[in-house]
Amino acid sequence: MNDLGLAITSLDQKAMVLARERLDRLAKPPGSLGVLEEIAIRLSGITGRVPPVVQNKAIIIMAGDHGIADEGVSSYPQSLTRLMVYTILRGGAAVNVLARQAGARTLVVDMGVKGRIEHPGILDRKIRDGTANILQGPAMTEEEARRAVMAGRDIACAAIDQGIELLGTGEMGIGNTTASSAILSVLCGFPPELVVGRGTGCDERRLQHKRDIISRVLEKHQPDPRNPVEVLAKVGGLEIAGLAGCILGAASRRVPVVIDGFISSAAALVASRFDAGVKDFIFASHLSEETGHDIMLNMLGVRPMLHMRMRLGEGTGAALAFGLIDASVRILQEMDTLDAVMDLDDR
Amino acid sequence: MNDLGLAITSLDQKAMVLARERLDRLAKPPGSLGVLEEIAIRLSGITGRVPPVVQNKAIIIMAGDHGIADEGVSSYPQSLTRLMVYTILRGGAAVNVLARQAGARTLVVDMGVKGRIEHPGILDRKIRDGTANILQGPAMTEEEARRAVMAGRDIACAAIDQGIELLGTGEMGIGNTTASSAILSVLCGFPPELVVGRGTGCDERRLQHKRDIISRVLEKHQPDPRNPVEVLAKVGGLEIAGLAGCILGAASRRVPVVIDGFISSAAALVASRFDAGVKDFIFASHLSEETGHDIMLNMLGVRPMLHMRMRLGEGTGAALAFGLIDASVRILQEMDTLDAVMDLDDR
Repeated sequence: MNDLGLAITSLDQKAMVLARERLDRLAKPPGSLGVLEEIAIRLSGITGRVPPVVQNKAIIIMAGDHGIADEGVSSYPQSLTRLMVYTILRGGAAVNVLARQAGARTLVVDMGVKGRIEHPGILDRKIRDGTANILQGPAMTEEEARRAVMAGRDIACAAIDQGIELLGTGEMGIGNTTASSAILSVLCGFPPELVVGRGTGCDERRLQHKRDIISRVLEKHQPDPRNPVEVLAKVGGLEIAGLAGCILGAASRRVPVVIDGFISSAAALVASRFDAGVKDFIFASHLSEETGHDIMLNMLGVRPMLHMRMRLGEGTGAALAFGLIDASVRILQEMDTLDAVMDLDDR
Repeated sequence: MNDLGLAITSLDQKAMVLARERLDRLAKPPGSLGVLEEIAIRLSGITGRVPPVVQNKAIIIMAGDHGIADEGVSSYPQSLTRLMVYTILRGGAAVNVLARQAGARTLVVDMGVKGRIEHPGILDRKIRDGTANILQGPAMTEEEARRAVMAGRDIACAAIDQGIELLGTGEMGIGNTTASSAILSVLCGFPPELVVGRGTGCDERRLQHKRDIISRVLEKHQPDPRNPVEVLAKVGGLEIAGLAGCILGAASRRVPVVIDGFISSAAALVASRFDAGVKDFIFASHLSEETGHDIMLNMLGVRPMLHMRMRLGEGTGAALAFGLIDASVRILQEMDTLDAVMDLDDR
């Protein structure tokens, strides 16, 4: 039991052995489907079922604003967060397109967007109207950070109670690559020069500015990397805290989570500082174009399936990877065995 | 017009500009969907339509036997080629599972399997009962190599006449990584030590044996890398020649081709020696675990989307990538524009 009161148990080794044995009997050289086989085995270990069932899927998209946007770290205005939330709610964003293709629901959560979202589809868990400018003070109080994590956990658990068997993470928040880069720098111990990138696409001047800002932020706050609540409170984001909670909640309920890109991975890193056991429940979808994403995935011990040079977020990579997860389960379910092939020899 | 009598024309630049402009108006930073956007643009250039239409899909699986299998280059017996062809015909192989998921047909072609395939689903284009043992003589005559390429071209063109809009390549043939490694060594000029790998999974001893065999084969035949018919005849395979023809045929009809792993890529390399124009029509699905596959993809100027450490062939990687191709088209079709998002600001 971790200090959030969540029990995250280990993988079902017996189910994993069963899945491996079954895969090795199929009409192919053992292991020749590579990561597809590894996914099928781990899903079996997570769910305790062979073949695993991950039919009902959802992408949880958490939105929040960032006070640091005032410092010009993004090429886009802060008001775009709220407008993009409306766009996702009406189904017109990239993540909607890819979630539809994957047959996944989208759950859109207001964790801390500046301004009210009036839409029947929104899940309103607003902790506050965006974070504070972290150049001036902490992003939020530790109590707010903890509440955001708990809200995320509750959202994931409620989705699972409604039958969701596979979760993907996504987010929307202008300025959230800055918060995520700060989190990464704190947790991996590398200086901002090495881990801060261009986000959705800023130029060289703005990149240098962003690095300077993050250096000053880290010097000011010096968050303790062993304390995830402190890290979230000092340099985090409301949607990042919420996603960390989602991942913890899913792991506690033994439901696999496909993480998206840089921001989702920052949330997963934070979740792993609450409880290292979450790593077993996480699948990496893609390697983002963002600097430092590879470091995050290495720290999480996961390897990305897709190399598409994407840098949009929203959960687009997670949705795209759902098809690969489905494929791994179908291999386990539908392929002939090598014995059945050899029996054809009577022809 | 190349010396096969096929005219391969260049991409439709106007359609590509249109696709790029349309993508740049969507509700996302320009280029932030990375390779998904690049695919949509190139598909537009290939088909001349924005959005492109690639709804009807097929994987062409070509099978052939290899005389070199007598030298113990594979861990599997040669007879498995024919049995796996039957397995694919009855829908129980890995490629069938992944093609079903992608909504793609499978077309199974006997280019040169040893022994008769009696099944109503087989497309019988058998050139000969497997290649000769290339340690002793050429794999086939130049006339046979040319006929195999032409048969492949005809299969692709017939599929396109029946409404296929997107092709994937796949193959079955015990010993065909040996032939493909030999082709790669000839065409890239690197010695076998650098480009020969474990195929579907041989041990260190067999790997060394395979390298020795290929070195001796190349020393014996010394094929001229500028003459693709000679390369195919001396060290190639019937299914490899057929796939090269498929790729040439598809390109001549302006239909995109998703290539699978090591053997399909060897076929694509050969096709590019017939006509370098084919490269514009090729999409790489995955980076195989097989040594030398990265060299092949670099020579073709394509970058793989999936990093799944697969090494099965059959067309499994191509089928898995069809979902990503679909996603790229849907992005172009279904996303809201940034202008529409900004109009929400009146709320």
